Amino acid sequence: MNPLRYDCMRLEEVATELFTRVGVSEHHARTVAQSLIHADLRGIESHGLSRLPIYMKRIEAKVIELDQEPEMVKQEGATALIDGKNHLGAVVGKVALEQAISLAKQAGIGFVGVRHSNHFGTCSFYAERAIEQDQILLVLSNAPESMAPTGGIRPFLGTNPMAIGIPAGKELPFLLDMATSVVARGKIALAAKKGEPIPADWAIDQDGIPTTDPERALLGSLLPIGGAKGYGLAMFIDVLCGLLTGAACGPGVQSLYENWTHPQNIGHVFLTIDVQRFWPLPVFQSRMDEYIREIKSVPKKAGIDEIMIPGEIENRKMSEQRVHGVSLSPGIAQELEQACITYGVDWGKARIGS
Amino acid sequence: MNPLRYDCMRLEEVATELFTRVGVSEHHARTVAQSLIHADLRGIESHGLSRLPIYMKRIEAKVIELDQEPEMVKQEGATALIDGKNHLGAVVGKVALEQAISLAKQAGIGFVGVRHSNHFGTCSFYAERAIEQDQILLVLSNAPESMAPTGGIRPFLGTNPMAIGIPAGKELPFLLDMATSVVARGKIALAAKKGEPIPADWAIDQDGIPTTDPERALLGSLLPIGGAKGYGLAMFIDVLCGLLTGAACGPGVQSLYENWTHPQNIGHVFLTIDVQRFWPLPVFQSRMDEYIREIKSVPKKAGIDEIMIPGEIENRKMSEQRVHGVSLSPGIAQELEQACITYGVDWGKARIGS
Ligand SMILES: NC(=O)c1ccc[n+]([C@@H]2O[C@H](COP(=O)([O-])OP(=O)(O)OC[C@H]3O[C@@H](n4cnc5c(N)ncnc54)[C@H](O)[C@@H]3O)[C@@H](O)[C@H]2O)c1
Ligand SMILES: NC(=O)c1ccc[n+]([C@@H]2O[C@H](COP(=O)([O-])OP(=O)(O)OC[C@H]3O[C@@H](n4cnc5c(N)ncnc54)[C@H](O)[C@@H]3O)[C@@H](O)[C@H]2O)c1
Repeated sequence: MNPLRYDCMRLEEVATELFTRVGVSEHHARTVAQSLIHADLRGIESHGLSRLPIYMKRIEAKVIELDQEPEMVKQEGATALIDGKNHLGAVVGKVALEQAISLAKQAGIGFVGVRHSNHFGTCSFYAERAIEQDQILLVLSNAPESMAPTGGIRPFLGTNPMAIGIPAGKELPFLLDMATSVVARGKIALAAKKGEPIPADWAIDQDGIPTTDPERALLGSLLPIGGAKGYGLAMFIDVLCGLLTGAACGPGVQSLYENWTHPQNIGHVFLTIDVQRFWPLPVFQSRMDEYIREIKSVPKKAGIDEIMIPGEIENRKMSEQRVHGVSLSPGIAQELEQACITYGVDWGKARIGS
Repeated sequence: MNPLRYDCMRLEEVATELFTRVGVSEHHARTVAQSLIHADLRGIESHGLSRLPIYMKRIEAKVIELDQEPEMVKQEGATALIDGKNHLGAVVGKVALEQAISLAKQAGIGFVGVRHSNHFGTCSFYAERAIEQDQILLVLSNAPESMAPTGGIRPFLGTNPMAIGIPAGKELPFLLDMATSVVARGKIALAAKKGEPIPADWAIDQDGIPTTDPERALLGSLLPIGGAKGYGLAMFIDVLCGLLTGAACGPGVQSLYENWTHPQNIGHVFLTIDVQRFWPLPVFQSRMDEYIREIKSVPKKAGIDEIMIPGEIENRKMSEQRVHGVSLSPGIAQELEQACITYGVDWGKARIGS
């Protein structure tokens, strides 16, 4: 069965409406809707509207709170610290991003730490916005435990993601957006559902042995990229996002799905660099274009059509889906339809052709 | 044959003396000597005194230049741009690090880009110095081509390394220092010398096929950690260090060993964060200690004695070698002895027991 296609603008209306039904202000509801649809547009279904039901459920359970706005705790020099007040992650993230961009416009660089936040979706949502404003962005977030430290056999670190966005001119921008684990937990869950084996470098079982059995992997721990190097990167992200900002870190970060009594208390870091401190924008842009064309002209392996720039695969998917509609897998569409029925929102209007 | 042991302080005297013989000022000679011996102390022989002869040779060939000091081209807000004037990499790196630390003390964060530099040794040399001053450091450098972009079959990117240093209190600091390739080229050269096969994830041959034959690997390209993720990280480092600063990037970075007509024109980035903008130092230190103890107490895989913090293996090696002497492999010791004979420096005094 082919996944159905939905219009991205109409999906945004539906998702915005749904969030307002559980008390989110129209403005914030739109931000979160945009962040989720950004992920679906880019083909990152795992971080798209599939997360809408759990966000709503957590709002209703009051483990995500709406009564206070994210607040700037401190602003000194080129740094700031923001308390997310346990609001929705994308709402908090957007405030922090804007602060980081304004710091970089003043000081050439901006560093914003964030505490008391929640799952904020894909990192690329923020990187894309920074790129639109001609800024380089490094964005980090910690996440609930799922990866063991090298040599360990119990999860301690999250799949702590990072993204880096760098504007270009005529070429697509550089947008690296990655978990520090080899793959997302979701891919293992999917293999388990299908009864398929997984590659041996994805996860270890509870004894620390690499496993191709997804069921054993789900009880064990994800593996970081590059062995101890990825472990180090994930720990660095945890220390900056969690420990330095005053958010939770390590196993102190609460699960989005399993903990119904405590806020997640996730931390993020937004680091911006103003390109124009170093080059007039058109010069930087044309140098980036030239660099990108050069790397794309490296001789290719047999069977490879094109060398891709980080973010390019997702960017092309986005362009296609903006025009032809976002594909949602039937399970997710059904869940959204159910939410629409519960809250009296018209799901049908999002469907293309309807 | 056991490697011989040498006293680290006396090695510093010998190496400093050698550099002064080719015209390096006493002060700068000491900096470079310290950076190389730092690597040997930490067990990173590939970036230690084994590089002294090539540095001296490049100075004599005038592809490293000594007549101008690194110069600050620009300083605005929390950013600075330094022109290394083609001086020795560690000399340039130290100037840039000091500038970054002073910016962070003013603005909470500092960003220093560097162009016209040379091979600057291990990144951990700079991270260790930042940690001593209670600063968090992210240091990046680009390097000559040796890695193909994902899908490509010719080198374009260097093994572009990064280090992150974060101070702790009573525990050892966090010091992740890593190439973005799975392994250094030197490890493949070593396997070739010994006629031993290499793991299939280290490199590809000239057709882009993963190879266990070190000879084929040396003609091919190194592989980045984590597939396209490591390719993205290496490219990000190249764009920041090379393109943003105005240094060379991609294949424009010249080889340390093979190009005798052009400067390397390597670029670096030093990014510092002042911990004390976020926490009183003792609070941050004790939180780091607690975090480190927590991660070290994760249940261990059978056969693993201890969970290590990034940098811990090297830090222990350093403590041991500070006391019992630095071990140098015979080949390297011989080369240094030869250089000492050529320049009339007393090599014998470095040897422990002599
Ligand atoms: N909020 C959270 O807690 C959290 C946690 C983990 C992951 N995430 C998100 O999950 C998403 C998926 O992460 P992932 O690690 O599975 O991503 P991925 O492995 O699909 O892609 C990682 C990066 O590699 C690039 N890439 C892939 N193949 C390439 C190729 N052939 N050439 C060039 N570049 C290529 C992609 O463009 C992307 O930038 C990200 O958006 C991340 O932010 C979020
Ligand atoms: N100047 C240059 O052009 C250049 C280029 C490439 C590399 N380098 C240097 O080469 C050196 C070696 O790089 P590498 O990638 O081969 O390093 P590596 O693979 O030996 O170590 C990488 C990191 O992982 C950590 N680590 C390893 N095993 C661990 C474990 N079990 N638990 C916890 N942490 C662990 C180490 O402490 C280190 O921080 C670095 O100093 C780097 O700066 C320099």
